[in-house]
Amino acid sequence: MSDVTAVPKQTSRRTVEIELGDRSYPIIIGHGLFDDGFIWSSAGEGDCAAIVTNTTVRPLYAESLAKAISSRFKRVIVIELQDGEVYKDAASLNHIFDRLLTERADRKCVLFALGGGVIGDMTGFAAACYMRGVPFVQIPTTLLAQVDSSVGGKTAINHPLGKNMIGAFYQPRLVVADLDTLSTLPARQFSAGLAEVIKYGPILDLPFFDWIEANIDALISRDPDALGHAIQRCCELKAAVVAKDEQESSVRAVLNFGHTFGHAIETGAGYGVWLHGEAVGCGMVMGADLSMRLGLISEAYAMRLRRLIERAGLPIVGPRLGADRYVELMGHDKKSEGGEIRFVLIHDDGHASIRTAPGAIVRQVIEANC
Amino acid sequence: MSDVTAVPKQTSRRTVEIELGDRSYPIIIGHGLFDDGFIWSSAGEGDCAAIVTNTTVRPLYAESLAKAISSRFKRVIVIELQDGEVYKDAASLNHIFDRLLTERADRKCVLFALGGGVIGDMTGFAAACYMRGVPFVQIPTTLLAQVDSSVGGKTAINHPLGKNMIGAFYQPRLVVADLDTLSTLPARQFSAGLAEVIKYGPILDLPFFDWIEANIDALISRDPDALGHAIQRCCELKAAVVAKDEQESSVRAVLNFGHTFGHAIETGAGYGVWLHGEAVGCGMVMGADLSMRLGLISEAYAMRLRRLIERAGLPIVGPRLGADRYVELMGHDKKSEGGEIRFVLIHDDGHASIRTAPGAIVRQVIEANC
Repeated sequence: MSDVTAVPKQTSRRTVEIELGDRSYPIIIGHGLFDDGFIWSSAGEGDCAAIVTNTTVRPLYAESLAKAISSRFKRVIVIELQDGEVYKDAASLNHIFDRLLTERADRKCVLFALGGGVIGDMTGFAAACYMRGVPFVQIPTTLLAQVDSSVGGKTAINHPLGKNMIGAFYQPRLVVADLDTLSTLPARQFSAGLAEVIKYGPILDLPFFDWIEANIDALISRDPDALGHAIQRCCELKAAVVAKDEQESSVRAVLNFGHTFGHAIETGAGYGVWLHGEAVGCGMVMGADLSMRLGLISEAYAMRLRRLIERAGLPIVGPRLGADRYVELMGHDKKSEGGEIRFVLIHDDGHASIRTAPGAIVRQVIEANC
Repeated sequence: MSDVTAVPKQTSRRTVEIELGDRSYPIIIGHGLFDDGFIWSSAGEGDCAAIVTNTTVRPLYAESLAKAISSRFKRVIVIELQDGEVYKDAASLNHIFDRLLTERADRKCVLFALGGGVIGDMTGFAAACYMRGVPFVQIPTTLLAQVDSSVGGKTAINHPLGKNMIGAFYQPRLVVADLDTLSTLPARQFSAGLAEVIKYGPILDLPFFDWIEANIDALISRDPDALGHAIQRCCELKAAVVAKDEQESSVRAVLNFGHTFGHAIETGAGYGVWLHGEAVGCGMVMGADLSMRLGLISEAYAMRLRRLIERAGLPIVGPRLGADRYVELMGHDKKSEGGEIRFVLIHDDGHASIRTAPGAIVRQVIEANC
């Protein structure tokens, strides 16, 4: 009878399946996932695992991850990179290759990306290229990476002439989004992640926009239920888009709402000065303003989005680089074709579209918001 | 009636289809292909094409290729690299990216690899990574590239710690093997290409081995019919293997016969001292000797292969690096797993297998052939 009182440890775990044929994989969202031996079963096993992380995250979580996977691999090596977008470059990528080759990691070695979007993007790209492809697992430790960059297999490094210019579409084998890792996330980084959460509303799901607006205070205070729901919904929305268009030839590009202006802000201000999510938040303000000036949304809607971005703790005014510089930087955007800049625009009914815009209006948007 | 006498221009063209589902593509083999507008129809069209070539090939063929595709693209840029295996590195790859970004090449830009295996491997890898993937076309101008490296989508650059360590599986849209380009190929490079031709006999097709033996003089004198047949047969054999195992998880690895010893020769002697085909030729002598010592083939067969490699104008004695150095270098081979070196071995009945071998026998092979 005493067994009845032995309540099993509660693990409110959510799983989102990314359906991509033989490249399908699960995203597992929950608390205390590192200690759950079962979830690592799809991470592979063998001679060698390499945890790629950075100087900030390593002391917090590398040891417990190494312990969690130690029974599956003969050896676990840790590759530490400097922390920050400014290090998402060819030099850091080469450091990963140098270490893997020095350690004689073979082509069954599994790479574990332990960190935010920068670590995920670089580790994924390293996995795509090392010996023409080794398996990798994402363990995103920032809100931004949990809701966005760990879903969909986009990997890349930056180039002095543009962000994410060198990369690959390469899917992880497993994504483990442990909510516990968000407890150590600085407020500024957390707000940057909220920018990507907010993004999903206007482009794909107006009821979710309403939900975020109603729950923004709970999200900012990192309420576990609110966070779990938001992360799951973002992953579901992104998964549906990626399943339709893995290589971003069409519909997937709507996920870049705020990113055309945002990339110009990031590059123009110098990599690392603005966080990616901050630039995307401000870029969404500008993208909404452009949509309004083109008659696609009401002024009230544009203001409502702007207010929500501000409440999330994000900057809503871009750096004063001058309209010429913005236009020049946006010309390097991967969405541009034949020299024309293409924008993701939002509509009143909650969908997004991709098109060019008159240069004079684009300049008005830049002048009004910077 | 006069129309009857208007015989169409004779073009003895051979086509090999590489069947890889939605990544399928044709290899077109023949003379005077640059001047044939029709074959370029599957090369794409648009704003920008980039011909990637080297200092040796550019003055010979870049202008006529640019002319051939000029009606399909608004602009054709030429990116020139230094010639040689020693330049198959991260610096050359970055040079390609720098030029593409400076020219604002967008993600519909088509890359044309005009040159030998080094240009093909680097251009293919650049295409795989630039903006996460742009289309590319192979125009192999060496025998080695026509029979081997332009079939199957293996792309890569070298790393100081090993050959082809950083790369991707990425398929071209079209391969154009114009036999006219072989007329300018130096004898040493031509012999290096014959090594890869010879390779296909023992691993996949003994009757083809007999045919090469009977036609080696015609091949060396670059007889067009003999060359056309040999290139077509090699592409067919490789295509069949690649279709079964695109990512080299199993059967495709037999194509690396001679390459484990060969890579050690190339790396140990210093990149660029031995040509890849020369190292593979000598590596096949060593691979055959190892197969003989393991009782898989007769001594007569091993001698026959060795004699054919010699008649092709290839070195049959490796550099004296010492057995320890060979073993160390072979430990970096991508086929090695968990630290064990795996060899492609040949059998009397004309098939190949992949396995480890006792270290003492491997050392005997190195001592006897270097």
